[in-house]
Amino acid sequence: MLPAIAWKNKAVVMVDQRKLPWKEVYVECRTVEQVARAIESMIIRGAPAIGIAAAYGLALGFANLKMGEDPVRAFEKFFYRLWRTRPTAQNLFWALERMKKVFEENKNRKLSELKKILLAEAQAIEKEDLEINKKISEYGQALIPEKAVILTHCNAGGLATAGYGTALGVIRAAVKQGKKVKVLADETRPFLQGARLTVWELDKEKIPVTLITDNMAGWLMNSGEVDVVIVGADRIAHNGDTANKIGTYSLAVLAKENKIPFYVAAPLSTFDFNLGTGRDIPIEERNPEEVRRACGKLITLPNVPVKNPAFDVTPARLITAIITEKGILRPPYQQSIKSLK
Amino acid sequence: MLPAIAWKNKAVVMVDQRKLPWKEVYVECRTVEQVARAIESMIIRGAPAIGIAAAYGLALGFANLKMGEDPVRAFEKFFYRLWRTRPTAQNLFWALERMKKVFEENKNRKLSELKKILLAEAQAIEKEDLEINKKISEYGQALIPEKAVILTHCNAGGLATAGYGTALGVIRAAVKQGKKVKVLADETRPFLQGARLTVWELDKEKIPVTLITDNMAGWLMNSGEVDVVIVGADRIAHNGDTANKIGTYSLAVLAKENKIPFYVAAPLSTFDFNLGTGRDIPIEERNPEEVRRACGKLITLPNVPVKNPAFDVTPARLITAIITEKGILRPPYQQSIKSLK
Repeated sequence: MLPAIAWKNKAVVMVDQRKLPWKEVYVECRTVEQVARAIESMIIRGAPAIGIAAAYGLALGFANLKMGEDPVRAFEKFFYRLWRTRPTAQNLFWALERMKKVFEENKNRKLSELKKILLAEAQAIEKEDLEINKKISEYGQALIPEKAVILTHCNAGGLATAGYGTALGVIRAAVKQGKKVKVLADETRPFLQGARLTVWELDKEKIPVTLITDNMAGWLMNSGEVDVVIVGADRIAHNGDTANKIGTYSLAVLAKENKIPFYVAAPLSTFDFNLGTGRDIPIEERNPEEVRRACGKLITLPNVPVKNPAFDVTPARLITAIITEKGILRPPYQQSIKSLK
Repeated sequence: MLPAIAWKNKAVVMVDQRKLPWKEVYVECRTVEQVARAIESMIIRGAPAIGIAAAYGLALGFANLKMGEDPVRAFEKFFYRLWRTRPTAQNLFWALERMKKVFEENKNRKLSELKKILLAEAQAIEKEDLEINKKISEYGQALIPEKAVILTHCNAGGLATAGYGTALGVIRAAVKQGKKVKVLADETRPFLQGARLTVWELDKEKIPVTLITDNMAGWLMNSGEVDVVIVGADRIAHNGDTANKIGTYSLAVLAKENKIPFYVAAPLSTFDFNLGTGRDIPIEERNPEEVRRACGKLITLPNVPVKNPAFDVTPARLITAIITEKGILRPPYQQSIKSLK
């Protein structure tokens, strides 16, 4: 499998995650607008992968820039188009800010040089993300018992990152250590990232995976069938409050009730150090059709009103530990997160 | 709309609940075997409705019985065929036992009389269930605040009963009282009773309903968007532990965490007075294909292992009150349930 995203001859290539696990279709984005739409329509998703896509989007915009066009105005245009694709994942803003810093430092150079510098920075973001995932996974696997049943939600795997994954990276590293783990994958309605993407990734590597509907997780915890819960994150506030795929909050409450450790695995690029608590994390409300349908199939009356918050916020008090590339953070998070800055 | 089930010229007629809300197709069962399969395949579902169907199944078996056939052996055969259709809902066993008692008392009568008596008993079960629902609803609506947002799971409506419903009956009665309630309906994977049946029932009566995925319920509770949770039940043990559609346990934990009242609405026929606690309630494990698909559409890899428990058990300590036709039961349930016997 190719990675979720790659730069190839002046194009950003992505596997279309809406079509997995049935079709491995690759989409070539040749304009900033195409990259922005790929993020909005979830051709690519997962916080770190969105950040990488946005960085490549800027590099792509500049690769297409003609002599004589104003680079400052162009950068601003591309930057804001990508900025407003999705509101919740911090990695998007982190990656765009990082690209902006490099742009500011080099904006007076020759256009041909600027193009190379921006592309190199996007490629560095991608490459570093992969290394970061490996570090997160190495730290995280130490938390996984020898024969654990691990529950995960959504997809925090290779498809959500530059490769290897955060939550699924930890699982991969535990398997590599020889641990006999089994995975329970929440299907993760409405977009079914668990049923479609997590199952697909784990099946490819022959890591035992069992699919459940989201509403079964609590009962399986209560029945003693879950040892550990591990998820990714879209944004982590300074106090440890964590935005992640809708349903994560419920899992955390249920894990606490059943005395099961609840871990979040995420790179530093997911932390929003400017946000005191999770209360102010903007929660994206997506298209009602996602709820009215499952893989395109209508499952209810065509016009029924729907709520579709794509994320929720898990309070820090429900999180046993946060696994980062700098090590494992424990409560009180205010303090342990401060040490990262 | 016709009721979920009706007796009509030597047939048991049911609306095919697998095809709602798109098609109102009626299935005519003319043999015990057809009734049993209708229950197993969920053409009809919902604990009270299953009980009614089983009672009619026995009446149907006898309606078809020829002179000279042994009524005792026939009864046993029909009884056990229906008994093993589904394991969790108490109402099935309650209805079959009630029919058995009437059979025992009348088995020496003329076959033509016996046929009439068994049919009359099944019809009484149906008629009483409707009256019981009205009583439950009247008691229950007093618990609903003036402008409540009510979260419900699965379908405990007219389709799950002889009509009117238990949890949805309470909502109907609150609306009739002039209360301005709004309903949040969990879609209720995998069979989607919420998305298909609850939405359909409420939409028909113009009771405002908003559909959500099951994993959104906790977050909406935490966001202050839910005032009351109300569900039906499939079996209630002597201590108040309650089996209901998978996902109910999670809702109860989340309601407790967020200080939201959690109500169960159920007739006395749902109580299993022989069962001390919910631990021993048998939980049906259904076909994995139900989880791999949504309304028939494949949503994952074709052969991925699946868990599919159709029910879970909510411990009594998480239940604010149980609404019955004899009034509202409060903890300690051991005591309040004893008073029902």
